[in-house]
Amino acid sequence: MAATGTTGSPCGACKFLRRKCTAECIFAPYFCSEQGPAIFAAIHKVFGASNVSKLLLHVPVSDRCDAVLTVAYEAQSRIRDPIYGCVSHLFALQQQVAYLQGQVMHMKAQLAQNLIDHHSFSIWPVLQE
Amino acid sequence: MAATGTTGSPCGACKFLRRKCTAECIFAPYFCSEQGPAIFAAIHKVFGASNVSKLLLHVPVSDRCDAVLTVAYEAQSRIRDPIYGCVSHLFALQQQVAYLQGQVMHMKAQLAQNLIDHHSFSIWPVLQE
Repeated sequence: MAATGTTGSPCGACKFLRRKCTAECIFAPYFCSEQGPAIFAAIHKVFGASNVSKLLLHVPVSDRCDAVLTVAYEAQSRIRDPIYGCVSHLFALQQQVAYLQGQVMHMKAQLAQNLIDHHSFSIWPVLQE
Repeated sequence: MAATGTTGSPCGACKFLRRKCTAECIFAPYFCSEQGPAIFAAIHKVFGASNVSKLLLHVPVSDRCDAVLTVAYEAQSRIRDPIYGCVSHLFALQQQVAYLQGQVMHMKAQLAQNLIDHHSFSIWPVLQE
């Protein structure tokens, strides 16, 4: 995503917003001129450039890339699914967790039963003597 | 969340935005006067009232409640965790899925081994004859 507002060409965010990109542009390090505008378009549509700018200002510089990535993910998910957004992914994962927990419980019960059966078999030769 | 802009008192969104709540207010059915303003404050801070209003207009009326709930969830998560927002919950669930899948694989291997052992034991009395 890396870009810069100092090379003369605007970053992806400023390109989308059709504004001059300055050396202080908060978006420049994360939105390149090529793929940046499309990603920023989704972010702007869902969150608004101004809200995201304010958010980034309140996040340490070292964490801003992660903040941009997660905001971009949420924005793109909301455009794909306007009703549930990325929460649909969350629901799917919750269902998968519930299903796997059920499998684990079932197999634990099977293993416990096997242990009981195994014991009966292992003392069988002794009983036969 | 149910509220109305027709009873005279503004809905939670209009109360927060300090504006007159009309009978056509798109937020009124989902933001009551009591808890509504606090929830709407988070939504407004993260997404902006105008963006959410546009989003709801593009969602069928029957799905708007779910859209408001998921937007409220994302907004509140982003306020709690400005870097990862609700994506942190997603990461946690992905880790839980990976852990449970590991457990299932391990137990499947154990059950398969038990089946082999069980076979050896079950033919033991025959071999002793």
